[in-house]
Amino acid sequence: MKIENILIVSPMYQELRAYIQNAGVQKNIRYIPEDEATQENLKWADALVSFNLKSDYDYSHLKWVHSLGAGVDRFLYKKTWDDRVLLTRTVCTFGQRIGEYCLSYILRDLQCHEEFRELQLQKKWQQRTPKLLNELKVMVYGTGEIGQAVAKLLSGFGVEVYGVSQSGKEKEYFKEAMTVESHFIILGEMDLIINTMPLTEETAGFFNSQVFQKVTNAGFINVGRGASVDEESLLQALEDGQVRYAVLDVFTQEPLPENHPLWIHPGVLITPHISAVTTPGEGAACFLDTLRNLEENKPLNNRVDTNKGY
Amino acid sequence: MKIENILIVSPMYQELRAYIQNAGVQKNIRYIPEDEATQENLKWADALVSFNLKSDYDYSHLKWVHSLGAGVDRFLYKKTWDDRVLLTRTVCTFGQRIGEYCLSYILRDLQCHEEFRELQLQKKWQQRTPKLLNELKVMVYGTGEIGQAVAKLLSGFGVEVYGVSQSGKEKEYFKEAMTVESHFIILGEMDLIINTMPLTEETAGFFNSQVFQKVTNAGFINVGRGASVDEESLLQALEDGQVRYAVLDVFTQEPLPENHPLWIHPGVLITPHISAVTTPGEGAACFLDTLRNLEENKPLNNRVDTNKGY
Repeated sequence: MKIENILIVSPMYQELRAYIQNAGVQKNIRYIPEDEATQENLKWADALVSFNLKSDYDYSHLKWVHSLGAGVDRFLYKKTWDDRVLLTRTVCTFGQRIGEYCLSYILRDLQCHEEFRELQLQKKWQQRTPKLLNELKVMVYGTGEIGQAVAKLLSGFGVEVYGVSQSGKEKEYFKEAMTVESHFIILGEMDLIINTMPLTEETAGFFNSQVFQKVTNAGFINVGRGASVDEESLLQALEDGQVRYAVLDVFTQEPLPENHPLWIHPGVLITPHISAVTTPGEGAACFLDTLRNLEENKPLNNRVDTNKGY
Repeated sequence: MKIENILIVSPMYQELRAYIQNAGVQKNIRYIPEDEATQENLKWADALVSFNLKSDYDYSHLKWVHSLGAGVDRFLYKKTWDDRVLLTRTVCTFGQRIGEYCLSYILRDLQCHEEFRELQLQKKWQQRTPKLLNELKVMVYGTGEIGQAVAKLLSGFGVEVYGVSQSGKEKEYFKEAMTVESHFIILGEMDLIINTMPLTEETAGFFNSQVFQKVTNAGFINVGRGASVDEESLLQALEDGQVRYAVLDVFTQEPLPENHPLWIHPGVLITPHISAVTTPGEGAACFLDTLRNLEENKPLNNRVDTNKGY
């Protein structure tokens, strides 16, 4: 594929420019912030690099759209994609980042950080024995690149990691992979549930009361997409003790509205969508790699299946 | 070595009895709590299993003393050991336990747990990018069994791990091992310092103002022994910003006295000596292993060098 005019639309357009100019690419590239992204600007380009694409824009003349994020729901979810346009997504250290994010909160729980902090405030010396990671059973929803990175990291510590995916196909680092339909049987045994799934029509509202009812006293970490969780069902599951604690990095509405009950629930930890950040350096590197592979007609490891939605 | 009468003195003597009786050992074994440990009881035994040994007791008739803890300072530090008596110590999952303890607090810092908790209390959505473990340089004091387990765990995440030991001998999982004398050169580059050293005459008061002055804005984790740290120098280093935060599991005096300033310093996290707990099951298993090896004249991997003190 031959690309000439590339439009880069991003809040970090300046940082991206610094990295990309440094690489000496022989293309016409325009770098603009998100509020300057207009249909007019888009018309000039034959490729777009961005975190999203406004619904009412005509992009059918583009050859290629590259997502600066790993998730592409902002391009595909509840939209019809023009199949003539290639869609790729950023693949970089997301798996490692999300893995360390999850591990940090799992260890926070196992090592009783909160309890010891409370005891310190009371100047109380009261021993309790932290659990080891190898005592845990974890269910990871989504066995793709990110789910697998999480499974690799946890299984390295002896965690028993199960996976749920549409196909239920066996994957490395998972003790067992199951389909959405068949996994309920052992859900009650899990100490922890981690969502890494992309947002698609199948995963929207997936974590509802039917799922949470199968769970007992478990942790729940959401590093996938907020809209995969029915937030009211989650709050109810926290009340009922099916979910012991929830660590949420993503929400149906972001930023999470100030009056949302999740902010103040004692069993909920909130982070502002930071578990898998695209840094300018990594974002630029993945874009440049993809561009090179495209021009040399090499296989792409980050091509999105626009029908599947990820 | 032939052993007949074994005295087991421990706060967990009942749990140990359950495990050991279950193993069907053909010995005379007495199980007593620590307050029943008398010279009279000791006289009957030819082996002692305990966390410590009162200074004024005559134990020279014993063939073997087995420490239920990994640290043997309570047997050797500021004492003269009778060389005719074999001393062994418990070796089990301490390395893994201490590794996960350290990792939990390192990730707590990198993943900004405290900052996000503060922001949640204020219902503020304010992003910041967590650092990855592979951006860190860590100095581990002590390259023995436990230091090495910590180095293995951290280096697996791409952490650059340096080691300090008396010999400075190269060891697996350390990028470089240095002697106490030579390591000051790169101490200022470290993001984190972890103490795993045993308490001996060489390590007592080791972390003093001379050491802390070489450090810049670093974390400090102590999972070795409290008496290796000059606590006043540590408090000063926290004030002066050489040490950014300290995670302390061990103290010169334990339990930490209620009026101790470490309890209330905002840069200090206190845990009550729980990073490497001997569980009854693991304690019993290591004792039984050692007993078997002794009787079969097999080599011991947990024999203490009573001159070195560890």
